[in-house]
Amino acid sequence: MKKALDFQSIIMTLQDFWAERNCLIWQPYYSQVGAGTMNPATFLRVLGPEPWKVAYVEPSIRPDDGRYGDNPNRLQQFYQFQVILKPDPGNPQEIYLSSLKALGIDPDQHDIRFVEDNWQQPAIGAWGLGWEVWLDGQEITQFTYFQQCGGLDLDPVSVEITYGLERIAMTLQGVRHFKDIRWNPERTYGDVNLMGEREHSTYYFDVADVDRMRAMYNIYEKEAELAIAHGLVLPAHDYVLKTSHTFNILDTRGAVGVTERQELFGRTRDLARRVAETYVAQRRQAEFPWLVEGEVESAAVRQEAPRAITAAKASFLFEVGTEELPPSQLAWALAQLEETVPALLDELRLAHGAIRILGTPRRLVVSVAELATRQPDRSLEVKGPPAGRAFDADGNPTRAAEGFARSKGLDVSDLQVETIDGGEYVVARVDEPGRPAVDVLSEALPDLIAVIRFTKSMRWNESGVAFSRPIRWLLALLDGVVVPFEYAGYQSGRETRGLRFVSPQKFDVASPGEYFEKMEGQGIILDPETRQAAIRQQAEAIAASVGGRIGDDPALLAEVTNMVERPTAFLGEFDPSYVEILPPEALISVMRKHQRYIVVEDEDGNLMPYFIGVRNGGEEHLDLVADGNEQVILARFADARFFVEKDLRRPLADFVPELETLTFQAELGSFLDKTRRIHALVADLAPMLGLTADEQAAAERAAELCKADLATSMVVEMTSLQGIMGRYYAIHSGEPKPVADAIFEHYLPRSADDKLPASKPGLAVGLADRLDSLMGLFAVGLAPTGTKDPFAQRRAALGICQNLIAWERHFDLQEGLALAARVLAVEVSAEDRMACLDFIQGRLRVMLLDMGFNYDVVDAALAARGHDPYGALLAVRSLTDWVSRDEWDEILPAFSRCVRITRDLDEVYEVDSAGLQEASEKALLDAIQKAQAEMGDADTVDAFLTAFVPLVPVINRFFDDVLVMDEDEAVRRNRLALLQQVVALADGAADLSQLEGF
Amino acid sequence: MKKALDFQSIIMTLQDFWAERNCLIWQPYYSQVGAGTMNPATFLRVLGPEPWKVAYVEPSIRPDDGRYGDNPNRLQQFYQFQVILKPDPGNPQEIYLSSLKALGIDPDQHDIRFVEDNWQQPAIGAWGLGWEVWLDGQEITQFTYFQQCGGLDLDPVSVEITYGLERIAMTLQGVRHFKDIRWNPERTYGDVNLMGEREHSTYYFDVADVDRMRAMYNIYEKEAELAIAHGLVLPAHDYVLKTSHTFNILDTRGAVGVTERQELFGRTRDLARRVAETYVAQRRQAEFPWLVEGEVESAAVRQEAPRAITAAKASFLFEVGTEELPPSQLAWALAQLEETVPALLDELRLAHGAIRILGTPRRLVVSVAELATRQPDRSLEVKGPPAGRAFDADGNPTRAAEGFARSKGLDVSDLQVETIDGGEYVVARVDEPGRPAVDVLSEALPDLIAVIRFTKSMRWNESGVAFSRPIRWLLALLDGVVVPFEYAGYQSGRETRGLRFVSPQKFDVASPGEYFEKMEGQGIILDPETRQAAIRQQAEAIAASVGGRIGDDPALLAEVTNMVERPTAFLGEFDPSYVEILPPEALISVMRKHQRYIVVEDEDGNLMPYFIGVRNGGEEHLDLVADGNEQVILARFADARFFVEKDLRRPLADFVPELETLTFQAELGSFLDKTRRIHALVADLAPMLGLTADEQAAAERAAELCKADLATSMVVEMTSLQGIMGRYYAIHSGEPKPVADAIFEHYLPRSADDKLPASKPGLAVGLADRLDSLMGLFAVGLAPTGTKDPFAQRRAALGICQNLIAWERHFDLQEGLALAARVLAVEVSAEDRMACLDFIQGRLRVMLLDMGFNYDVVDAALAARGHDPYGALLAVRSLTDWVSRDEWDEILPAFSRCVRITRDLDEVYEVDSAGLQEASEKALLDAIQKAQAEMGDADTVDAFLTAFVPLVPVINRFFDDVLVMDEDEAVRRNRLALLQQVVALADGAADLSQLEGF
Repeated sequence: MKKALDFQSIIMTLQDFWAERNCLIWQPYYSQVGAGTMNPATFLRVLGPEPWKVAYVEPSIRPDDGRYGDNPNRLQQFYQFQVILKPDPGNPQEIYLSSLKALGIDPDQHDIRFVEDNWQQPAIGAWGLGWEVWLDGQEITQFTYFQQCGGLDLDPVSVEITYGLERIAMTLQGVRHFKDIRWNPERTYGDVNLMGEREHSTYYFDVADVDRMRAMYNIYEKEAELAIAHGLVLPAHDYVLKTSHTFNILDTRGAVGVTERQELFGRTRDLARRVAETYVAQRRQAEFPWLVEGEVESAAVRQEAPRAITAAKASFLFEVGTEELPPSQLAWALAQLEETVPALLDELRLAHGAIRILGTPRRLVVSVAELATRQPDRSLEVKGPPAGRAFDADGNPTRAAEGFARSKGLDVSDLQVETIDGGEYVVARVDEPGRPAVDVLSEALPDLIAVIRFTKSMRWNESGVAFSRPIRWLLALLDGVVVPFEYAGYQSGRETRGLRFVSPQKFDVASPGEYFEKMEGQGIILDPETRQAAIRQQAEAIAASVGGRIGDDPALLAEVTNMVERPTAFLGEFDPSYVEILPPEALISVMRKHQRYIVVEDEDGNLMPYFIGVRNGGEEHLDLVADGNEQVILARFADARFFVEKDLRRPLADFVPELETLTFQAELGSFLDKTRRIHALVADLAPMLGLTADEQAAAERAAELCKADLATSMVVEMTSLQGIMGRYYAIHSGEPKPVADAIFEHYLPRSADDKLPASKPGLAVGLADRLDSLMGLFAVGLAPTGTKDPFAQRRAALGICQNLIAWERHFDLQEGLALAARVLAVEVSAEDRMACLDFIQGRLRVMLLDMGFNYDVVDAALAARGHDPYGALLAVRSLTDWVSRDEWDEILPAFSRCVRITRDLDEVYEVDSAGLQEASEKALLDAIQKAQAEMGDADTVDAFLTAFVPLVPVINRFFDDVLVMDEDEAVRRNRLALLQQVVALADGAADLSQLEGF
Repeated sequence: MKKALDFQSIIMTLQDFWAERNCLIWQPYYSQVGAGTMNPATFLRVLGPEPWKVAYVEPSIRPDDGRYGDNPNRLQQFYQFQVILKPDPGNPQEIYLSSLKALGIDPDQHDIRFVEDNWQQPAIGAWGLGWEVWLDGQEITQFTYFQQCGGLDLDPVSVEITYGLERIAMTLQGVRHFKDIRWNPERTYGDVNLMGEREHSTYYFDVADVDRMRAMYNIYEKEAELAIAHGLVLPAHDYVLKTSHTFNILDTRGAVGVTERQELFGRTRDLARRVAETYVAQRRQAEFPWLVEGEVESAAVRQEAPRAITAAKASFLFEVGTEELPPSQLAWALAQLEETVPALLDELRLAHGAIRILGTPRRLVVSVAELATRQPDRSLEVKGPPAGRAFDADGNPTRAAEGFARSKGLDVSDLQVETIDGGEYVVARVDEPGRPAVDVLSEALPDLIAVIRFTKSMRWNESGVAFSRPIRWLLALLDGVVVPFEYAGYQSGRETRGLRFVSPQKFDVASPGEYFEKMEGQGIILDPETRQAAIRQQAEAIAASVGGRIGDDPALLAEVTNMVERPTAFLGEFDPSYVEILPPEALISVMRKHQRYIVVEDEDGNLMPYFIGVRNGGEEHLDLVADGNEQVILARFADARFFVEKDLRRPLADFVPELETLTFQAELGSFLDKTRRIHALVADLAPMLGLTADEQAAAERAAELCKADLATSMVVEMTSLQGIMGRYYAIHSGEPKPVADAIFEHYLPRSADDKLPASKPGLAVGLADRLDSLMGLFAVGLAPTGTKDPFAQRRAALGICQNLIAWERHFDLQEGLALAARVLAVEVSAEDRMACLDFIQGRLRVMLLDMGFNYDVVDAALAARGHDPYGALLAVRSLTDWVSRDEWDEILPAFSRCVRITRDLDEVYEVDSAGLQEASEKALLDAIQKAQAEMGDADTVDAFLTAFVPLVPVINRFFDDVLVMDEDEAVRRNRLALLQQVVALADGAADLSQLEGF
């Protein structure tokens, strides 16, 4: 076996490789940059229409990735190898993969994958779509179709390939830590760079002078502006880079709060944009000297001579070949095709058998069985000119009639007159023969692709077509015949591609049947459901083999399913000590979010030190693949430990002051301000929620600490661990367990199906937090709108309701909001409070409807108990019960009569009992008073209706005996007063007028 | 023919080349550095004892080399390829030369030379000795044996090879301008870097904000200190680099005066030193982990079995093979050998025939004809113990005598007693046989090398021996026999090397005769005189071929002679328009100083647009060589034009205020202060020097402008052009010609054989300048000492004298110095003035002696006229004339008698004519009065002696007749008074007492 390349040879090999492919070999930049993207050879050259191909090494500096040399593969300086291909050469993935081969990476022995990555660099106004390239789970390259840079749209799009050289070297050389990478025959990477890692980490994290860094930032910014003012692109760019690096140092020193971050980012981005604009203007002025006309290479797919199909029915196969689609986008595209394909075939009047919509990351497949090869003939009536114009007064056809007949290939005598929409028109009856399916599909298929929508789409070639990722081939076969069409610069054909690496070359298929055979032959499972089932079955077997089971995680399973064409699950292990050291949520989060590993639990649901990965490919060299993946997770866990150990150097309470730098919202202040408000509010809410003194003490302490973990490194790194780390750090800081639990629980529930707070302190702090957020945001005019809910207020409102209901606590939201308003530093109007309450009730309504209650019952209950979610639920339940009773048909009309006759009155009349003359009047008063007495203070639906039932006959008799609207005003008012008292019995219980049948 | 490498391929080829030679391939640094030396891979790794081999590209930033992209090969950013070999591999030049071959540079087609370069980088406390490597006159590489870095001595020494990639590419590709270099098959260097050159030049020269740059410098410095305080070597080094780059920007903006430059340099150097020390301490603490024992490769030269020589006489040849010695050092080494070799042979008692001391840049050669192969035998007397101890009272030998006799191999009876220094000693007479010459030479030759002294010497290998450049072989043959010895790690032998490239391999010579044959066969001219004659003859013939002649420049000829082994002169041309555009002095200076070209003049001494270069090698491809050299001079002239055009944007007077930033001397202020003083002084001096009103006006204007050119770019670049550019710019600024001329002339004479001012204004301004310098420097205690004369005061004093004499102007230096003292801002004591005058007179004395006058005459004249150089000369001439007359033997004794008898008197007596009694007294008084009348105010030697001649007989009679020292005091005083009057006649003319025979 050839010896693996050393580090410098990797670089030299890549230089040779790309030089041979006409890339200009460029040099690293003379400024500290976070990535090769910031080198002007990328940042500027991707702008404008001129072609450009370049490759270079870039030692990239990311201060906050410094790990003092301890982490196996995370470094404050690492070496990128950057390639820019502008425009897209048509097969950049294939070229890239051959470069891996040149490096000695045998794709047969590894799992190489293109994993969705929406790359963006806001500091320089740049973004693009593409992938991380994974080598056995390790990200070794970023591959991006660059869409925008310096805030400018890129046309043409550039392909950016960024190799992570250390990781490639580690894999090639089989070493576990960057310091063991052989750099050349004599020295290791550690020999030459370990000291730098230690020193720079120390400098960036612990030493750099913050005031001086700020001063530097300002100087750089001013020089950049000065240079721009003089039209000096490169000098300006240099200073933009310096602001960026200086910002990174400030950030790593922990000196930058959210607000300042946004501000500094904004300033750098603004400068970057002006640099970009100046550059483009400069090149335009020079008339884009590198622009060469007529260099377009067309995607050469030979076009077959059209062949006729004789069979009446044929199999139809349509494949859109793509570069790896993101899992979610694949799912969505398939869902859309499920809708559009049948509709299209109907529209095209093509009879068909079963339709199957299939897909993998590299292909969208439509398979139609027994498709009619020709439309049926049909007869159409075609409306011509009005009869009055088609025939003259003598009934002879005019020239208009003749012309119309001729245009339809008929004789005038064939025209008929019919009444259409009340007018008389000449009508031609035309027999339209059905067209061949090939023809109509040729016309329709482009649109079938074009209508697919994606969350985010991109351009890649000069067709300007947008898609989730580049389309690279189009296959359309009706039996053995190609359905010819063109889309996105590609001609449809019979060519397809198999599983990458196993079958990297294009190949032809003669027919749909052969297509499916060949796909199956390569192990590609086209049907996502089948694929998912296979993965589940494999994973379960593997988990069982180590005495465990897989966690229930359908979303992950669906994602993994859509990341592979040929799934093969494998088992990985990790050091069990991590289970001791780190919270399981952190471990799971790392495995799930970063690596899409399926976690393994024991019978009690405890995390086991295993994971299950799913490669794209077969069983070959699975040990190598598993080993590579284990290295990845090792480094990631080491990194998590780095953060946790750093955070644990101080008690959690120490992080509270740092919340001042984290802005919650501009007008509402920092998270420190918010913490203070929550703390104050918890003291008010505790009695309302029935907390004991101990519970209240725990709640108040938890309120002080509940947001502290937002300032810890681990949460900064992985926001999803907020609360989890807070609890963990609280325990390690010696806080009582109830306090620690409340810190975690105050975030619960985090999603619709999440668990709920298990303790009253958790409930109280969460309620305070949510009331504060909602009331505050409404007060500053930030109520969520249709699509926008950046502060997740819907979730907050729902959380309030879920928790109060689960805890069966009555709670007056009006009072809660008033208390929240009191501690806010902004002014809160009565309208704000009302709007906020309405918003919460809106969520509550959705929730109750989701529980299956009828909308009328829900509305009836909410109208009276909307301020008290638990009370509302009780009312809804109760009312639902009453409504279903037989006597309801009596009850509701009786009450309804009382309501209807009184609801338009402007005032509440007094009952003058002395003025009551009729017995039924007196009886009603008696009955009312009895009901009132029976209800006492109760305002539940049950209490009201139970008390009301006896009133029903009395009310009915009253209406039978007396005319309420008596001419005598006193009499009339007295009767109305009685009815008003009846209606008032329902106050606070429900608004029965909302019910059906009222 | 293979296509020449493009730019990126040159880099990749060099990477491959050095990687194959076990260099670690490193990357450019992420900071703007002036040279690859500042990359920590050099700056730090050369420190300490650990071995290190590295190679990398370094885009190097030199703001003040920016030329807006106009100059063919001068850029603010250029690409170095840097190689460090530590320790010296023994043959670094040969390895380097093979790398040129790898690049496709065929040494047979070019003139490749190692031209002395004493490299230093004061800003980082680094220096080394080595060469510029010239390819057809173009500097393509710096080759340095690094001696010190960060102020620390390097042990081992590192070899630093720095390729200038643009120039190599231009030569390989045959392009005339950097922008035309092919970078890769699609793009040129200009495509990718021209805009950067323009923009950065503009930024550095015209835009960068000076205040902000200063602020940046200070911030960087503080961060560097902070990092050092934390022991963080690399972060500290980064900031040192940033201070350095920022300093360069400030400098390019013209914002740094001499004083500030020194200060900022000092601060950076101090930081660099502390970084270096911290690094070494850190590595020591780690126990120098890369240090490998026993890796020493010995310079393997096989040692021959010693052979006997039978002949009585033999030819002796001794060659010290070196890497290219600097011309001056070669000359000096040869001069030393001329002294030491004969002395050594005498000391060794080896008879010999002719001794020839020969040498080229690569060899010091000693050739001795007919050297005795054996010392003659000799007999010695060896002193033993005192006779008293050697023999007892009975005269019998004691044990002391026996022991002594035995030690000499004698019997006691052979001892004799002799008287030595007054004591009696036993003496042994020993016959010493002569030793073979091979043996004594073996012992003596190392020392013959060791005693050679150089202005600056260096170490290169672990022998620790110092030499001007590395010794690489030692040849010592006595006829066919090797004289074995070891020096500097080399074993002597019969191996030598021929002309580089023609015969790159070592070869053996059997005998001295064969050596000379082979050298001659390769065209090597060993004898410097013969070589020089050959060059002169070739150059003259070439000059004649274009109708010109070569300028007379013996120093240049000597230098060129010592730069080649096999000289071949060739003709180069340059664009004649440069003769119009630039002052000829500038052109000559460029050709002479930078390129060592011999200039060609026409019959009238005007510069012709040709130059003559001398290659090291034969006639092959001389056209290519000439072409390459022409490109070099083209770029250099273009550069000069760049500066001149920049300077011409403003009138010369505009530069005057900038003189404030140029310090003349700390206490004496800036050159602006000096300018003001000169201006004031010129007004005083003008009448003294007899200037007309017009002349005075011109002189005063010239005084205002005389130093202005020191602030111009051209003079900053080439100090030797001061005055020349001043005149040139003055004319182009519309100043009157006399003013312009005076600006130039005020520096005249610049050296002993330089021309003198042709105009009175030039004379006056120059005198004012020199008086100001001398008086000022003496006043602040900076009189020159034995070896130190940093302000060239000797030259200034001599210039005063030369000019006054040439202009035949009497001028009282005492008065001049007093006037100069008056305008100085510092206090000037009478002693200072006296000391300064003495100093000038000292120079005048040397000058007069150099003219061939006798010292007694000179001293006699100076004693009376030393304050007036011209007067002194006249006196010397006159006196010389008188002294040579026959009557002088009468004159001097007569005068001498008068002097001797009066010279010890403390007072001057009055002549009491009434008291004169003797006739001879009265006659003397008469004669005196007649002489006084005849002399009038004249105080010349001639006037005095002409008047004195008639006095001679009178004086003689006086002494014959009277006893001067009469007992009567009145008589005595009156006679002495007469003689005092005689003596006084010589006052101011000369002090005849200084004359021989007085």
